[in-house]
Amino acid sequence: MTTLAIADGRVLRPDLTVTAADVLIDQDSGEIREIGPDLASEADDTLDAANSLVTPGFVNGHCHVAMTLLRGYADDKPLETWLREDIWPAEGELTAADIRAGAELGLLELIKSGVTAFADMYFQVPEVAAAVETAGLRARLGHGIVTIGKDGETAREDAATGLEIAREYDGAADGRISTAFMPHSLTTVGSEYLAEFVPKAREAGVPIHYHANETADEVAPIVDEHGVRPLEYAADRGLLEPEDFVAHGVHVDETEIELLAEVGTGVIHCPASNMKLASGMAPVERLREAGVTVGLGTDGAASNNDLSMLDEARDAAMLGKLAADDASAVPAEAVVEMMTRGSADAVGFDSGRLEVGAPADLAVIDLEQPHLTPPHDLVSHLAYAAAAADVRHTVCDGRVLMRDREVLTLEAAAVRERALEAAEAVVERADA
Amino acid sequence: MTTLAIADGRVLRPDLTVTAADVLIDQDSGEIREIGPDLASEADDTLDAANSLVTPGFVNGHCHVAMTLLRGYADDKPLETWLREDIWPAEGELTAADIRAGAELGLLELIKSGVTAFADMYFQVPEVAAAVETAGLRARLGHGIVTIGKDGETAREDAATGLEIAREYDGAADGRISTAFMPHSLTTVGSEYLAEFVPKAREAGVPIHYHANETADEVAPIVDEHGVRPLEYAADRGLLEPEDFVAHGVHVDETEIELLAEVGTGVIHCPASNMKLASGMAPVERLREAGVTVGLGTDGAASNNDLSMLDEARDAAMLGKLAADDASAVPAEAVVEMMTRGSADAVGFDSGRLEVGAPADLAVIDLEQPHLTPPHDLVSHLAYAAAAADVRHTVCDGRVLMRDREVLTLEAAAVRERALEAAEAVVERADA
Repeated sequence: MTTLAIADGRVLRPDLTVTAADVLIDQDSGEIREIGPDLASEADDTLDAANSLVTPGFVNGHCHVAMTLLRGYADDKPLETWLREDIWPAEGELTAADIRAGAELGLLELIKSGVTAFADMYFQVPEVAAAVETAGLRARLGHGIVTIGKDGETAREDAATGLEIAREYDGAADGRISTAFMPHSLTTVGSEYLAEFVPKAREAGVPIHYHANETADEVAPIVDEHGVRPLEYAADRGLLEPEDFVAHGVHVDETEIELLAEVGTGVIHCPASNMKLASGMAPVERLREAGVTVGLGTDGAASNNDLSMLDEARDAAMLGKLAADDASAVPAEAVVEMMTRGSADAVGFDSGRLEVGAPADLAVIDLEQPHLTPPHDLVSHLAYAAAAADVRHTVCDGRVLMRDREVLTLEAAAVRERALEAAEAVVERADA
Repeated sequence: MTTLAIADGRVLRPDLTVTAADVLIDQDSGEIREIGPDLASEADDTLDAANSLVTPGFVNGHCHVAMTLLRGYADDKPLETWLREDIWPAEGELTAADIRAGAELGLLELIKSGVTAFADMYFQVPEVAAAVETAGLRARLGHGIVTIGKDGETAREDAATGLEIAREYDGAADGRISTAFMPHSLTTVGSEYLAEFVPKAREAGVPIHYHANETADEVAPIVDEHGVRPLEYAADRGLLEPEDFVAHGVHVDETEIELLAEVGTGVIHCPASNMKLASGMAPVERLREAGVTVGLGTDGAASNNDLSMLDEARDAAMLGKLAADDASAVPAEAVVEMMTRGSADAVGFDSGRLEVGAPADLAVIDLEQPHLTPPHDLVSHLAYAAAAADVRHTVCDGRVLMRDREVLTLEAAAVRERALEAAEAVVERADA
């Protein structure tokens, strides 16, 4: 057994207490073997965690990681205009090599900010998968299916690609990659394609992930056409099972909240994107009260504009209070839970918790920073004050992805250079 | 003439365009002497700004900088409860030495995040002033006057202290320190004290700064008692002049917005604090449309919980869109303007702009970061993606306060240690 010790840190436990302890990792199985005092001397390798907080690796529950190429390309526009005028035309110009470059840039950012697992919806998924295999994170990947505005054959092909990708990549990268069947949303995929492909996705044993109830404009047409709320429509079409997870859930009513709680479908809250696109305020406090599993996601870098889950946690706590009109709503503990165990449970990862037998997915946060002083409450600091640059080490599946702020699995300068060139060329083609 | 050059950077100009240029600073006058190509070779000292954005130093328009000692001490509570149960009792335990320690910690954080000027309301102001003198920032300081709940003599003494501090420290630290007369708010200072001291503050030639219209609970009693809105009441009492500036302005109605625009009183928007305390959403887009000068402030670290103006800018853009229900509201350009020129104009600093003859107050942002790649739009990056840790150098009044991420005017480790000890002791006394 090859072992790695995280030494002398303060360890955030699943009950959100913090204890001074070492963490001993079995690198062969990728699991945590022991948490306790004096475990470092017997280990093959050691990461120093003195004056640092050892947390579960953050889980980004909803992302479009290759969209880093479009970071800052088009801001300050409402969702529909932004998609139609800027994002979709630019995405139409993305080659497989571009997606690879954008995904690597995104993964570099994720590792640097302590993220060890994420769920991603995009196209050219084999490129994203290849980047994930190299970078060493855990991921649930899917091809985002859109059928509206396409002729029947092209539409069906897109749905078939979604199924094929879900089948082919499930279990890739030694099991670090899992998949989902990912219709883009309930209004952008025709019900005939759902009818045909959802049962096949179930047969393949993969969950289903889609954008749901993101904007008010997206709810009305479903209510008008089908006479039920979007998530009732989703349940009717077989898209709401315990293993499924939806992104956003901003405009959900009480019936839908109860439905989510009853079924066990998770919701990935994306506060930054919801604010930046003025989509609205998700009722996070109410969702949690009702017993819904709530995770956190950054969405793509074009609507955020970074992929830091620490920013997302702060945004979630703050927006949750405004939405509830109550400063005690969505407290620090809630968002720390959401960015770790909440997202992991919703997406279907076994990570998000530091305990014996759990996957060794963790981040080490440097507490020797003015903005993290004094240490009255480390859970508060994680929720409200810690920043991506405070992450010292990132470990996924027992492997060190970043040591002393240097990413080991990707060459940062080369990744940035390739992304920069790809982004420039894409914008040139899109503007031509 | 001793000169400092900021070499090879991309300079953010007052019209928010970015040009490749050097910045030449006259360190004797503390002013920018020239902006253009090839100015570095003739300079006495040089700061490298290759692959970096040179921006005006950020201006934190409303802060309680020594409150860093209470960062994370009490979270997730509404304003009134939080003040009465946690903050005021703890503040009651703060000694002069504590305030000095907390202020130095806050200034360390401000310098590290590119802030060069700030407005601060607190008590034991001589300690804050001494810290500012050492740290090298520009500041407008004031004693926060509270008269409610105090007997007549103590109340009058507090107001007199406010005036005395404003008189004594105006122009201190070679002019880097200016002052204001700072009644805490319209509901916490009796009108008899305003009647007596405001004319004296005017005679002393200092502006007036106070919390206004922060929560709905604060508006109702004034409307009930005086039959007018809070800012109309303020105008009647002589507290609304062009040089004055108010913090928050969350619950302002159309009459008050027009009054602010007409008079020229600035508003310091504090989005993080307003969200964290569930105070509400300031109508920032409407304020700007009406022609009100809007700046940005972090408020104290206990309600934020950091002092990064880059976080604040992102929060302002995002919350501004939600408040206006319009994703095109409060765009990147608006918040970049607010965090520089907007705050400077509101508070009465001549800084916030990089042009010849302006104070040499600036920050240099490292663009070689994954989360700032690709460089489609640097103003967008500054608003949405840049973080405190990206700041390489900070210069105020022509003096280098931070070089290559090392603060030169404060000893970081010692400052953190003193703050840590002070905070621990304060909490022990408060809990006793």
